[in-house]
Amino acid sequence: MVKVLVIGAGAIGAFYGSLLAKAGAEVSVVCRSDYDQVKQHGFIIDSRSLGRWNFIPAQVLKNAADFEGSADTILLCTKVIPAVDRVALIQPAVAENTAIVFIQNGVEIEQEMLDAFPNNEVVSGLAFICCNRIGPGEILHLAYGRLALGNLPNGISNKTAQLCELFSHSGIDCNTNENIITGRWQKCIWNAPFNPLSVLSGGLPTLDILQNQEPFVRNIMQDVFNIAAASGHPLPDNIININIEHTYAMPPYKTSMLLDYENGQPMETEAILGNAVRAAQRLGISVPYLESVYALMKLRELKLIVKK
Amino acid sequence: MVKVLVIGAGAIGAFYGSLLAKAGAEVSVVCRSDYDQVKQHGFIIDSRSLGRWNFIPAQVLKNAADFEGSADTILLCTKVIPAVDRVALIQPAVAENTAIVFIQNGVEIEQEMLDAFPNNEVVSGLAFICCNRIGPGEILHLAYGRLALGNLPNGISNKTAQLCELFSHSGIDCNTNENIITGRWQKCIWNAPFNPLSVLSGGLPTLDILQNQEPFVRNIMQDVFNIAAASGHPLPDNIININIEHTYAMPPYKTSMLLDYENGQPMETEAILGNAVRAAQRLGISVPYLESVYALMKLRELKLIVKK
Repeated sequence: MVKVLVIGAGAIGAFYGSLLAKAGAEVSVVCRSDYDQVKQHGFIIDSRSLGRWNFIPAQVLKNAADFEGSADTILLCTKVIPAVDRVALIQPAVAENTAIVFIQNGVEIEQEMLDAFPNNEVVSGLAFICCNRIGPGEILHLAYGRLALGNLPNGISNKTAQLCELFSHSGIDCNTNENIITGRWQKCIWNAPFNPLSVLSGGLPTLDILQNQEPFVRNIMQDVFNIAAASGHPLPDNIININIEHTYAMPPYKTSMLLDYENGQPMETEAILGNAVRAAQRLGISVPYLESVYALMKLRELKLIVKK
Repeated sequence: MVKVLVIGAGAIGAFYGSLLAKAGAEVSVVCRSDYDQVKQHGFIIDSRSLGRWNFIPAQVLKNAADFEGSADTILLCTKVIPAVDRVALIQPAVAENTAIVFIQNGVEIEQEMLDAFPNNEVVSGLAFICCNRIGPGEILHLAYGRLALGNLPNGISNKTAQLCELFSHSGIDCNTNENIITGRWQKCIWNAPFNPLSVLSGGLPTLDILQNQEPFVRNIMQDVFNIAAASGHPLPDNIININIEHTYAMPPYKTSMLLDYENGQPMETEAILGNAVRAAQRLGISVPYLESVYALMKLRELKLIVKK
């Protein structure tokens, strides 16, 4: 039986972990905020597409160091924010044969992992999902759910293929992606405009943003498109049009950054925008629209700190 | 005795009107919000540099159409916002020999006046002042106060020179400026970054903005600098450095746009940013940083409308 340790069992971690458990894996979790509740009662997963069930982890832990046994796979699902040291967080549970899978937002978040664990399999994962924690240990899966997994620097290992099968078995669309870094830039095309604009506008849903400032949204997307191309991960020519059309078709949607903002939680400004802007600087590309929203998000964050 | 009608007697209008009255002019006012108070008791002007006095206008009116007599000079001091029709507002009081002086923010706000009143003298005015309405009919003059006046399209008329003398006589530094349109672009160098950034950051004072995002501020200033040059109003080469240094030296300051925002008042987004962006489009200049803050301010305003 494959042993999985989920680190950062918030909405995303608990949901995907529960699917692996459903498919027969032995799944343990490290969760800090809802520890007491989850230790006693496990998670309630309420999915609009897959039903409602109780997920009882094999071990419920406060720290990775408390994990008993050896994990075949670590599923790292925290937010990517400066306050969280991803390497230190998983280090104590990484054994010789542990594969490290991170399902996280952002671009250029790979190297840190590859540097820290040169002898482990490292897998990059992207979740396309709308899933929220609605109470202690209670996760509401609203829509979507697709997962893309790919080994770093590229390719697909047996372990990754097996993991993908387990997810699929539980009813989630999981694809392997041989160029997962390209996939990350592709996701950034959508995240880079809509996440910060939803916050900076004061809370507008995606449709209002698009209907009123489509040229601005496209300009930010074009900046990301150009960075991806220059960094050796060119995206399809029609990717911007596809994202625009897709967003017009979506129900009005609150972005993850807006939810974090409204809940007083730290935002993934650096992972999504800062890393992209730094990549542009390294590559000598001008990305004025992206730079502008990044600068404004940093001011917004500064104001939040000043307020506290 | 020179007859002056102030239209839009908020903080700026009441303050400058009171100075002309002090210097011996017969000053009437159109003021809507504080009409009852001002009709009964006039204005209280409390100036940190010039003392405290009571300004009793010759006529206190709700509309320009109620003005009795003929104005030598109309002093238009409303905010420049789409909801206010500047021409319609002053039209009823404009006589054959009336000079129209507007002390208002923004760029490219001249043509509308020149088109509507081709046979009148039109004077553009810029106020460098920190002055707030702190209660009904009560104006607090905190700092600065310099005024620049110049005829359109350029030059200085006798009437303008005379007006300038009256202001100077009352203790305010008033200069004539033969290229007042250039002066307007020069003021925009400061307004274009600090006004929107103070709002979009959620309320940061100018010093915090500058200390944390100086390169972004400079990029917006450079966009304005480029428009001014392309529109035939080149600014001094060192103007950006001067503005940056000056702002570091200023006490932390809440911009007028931030004050409007916090008070639920409409903001001069179109006069300051929209007109500048449209000028750039007309001239075929790329101004991505300015465009970005303009787009974000439009989203912020949209959110305010949605909220109501």
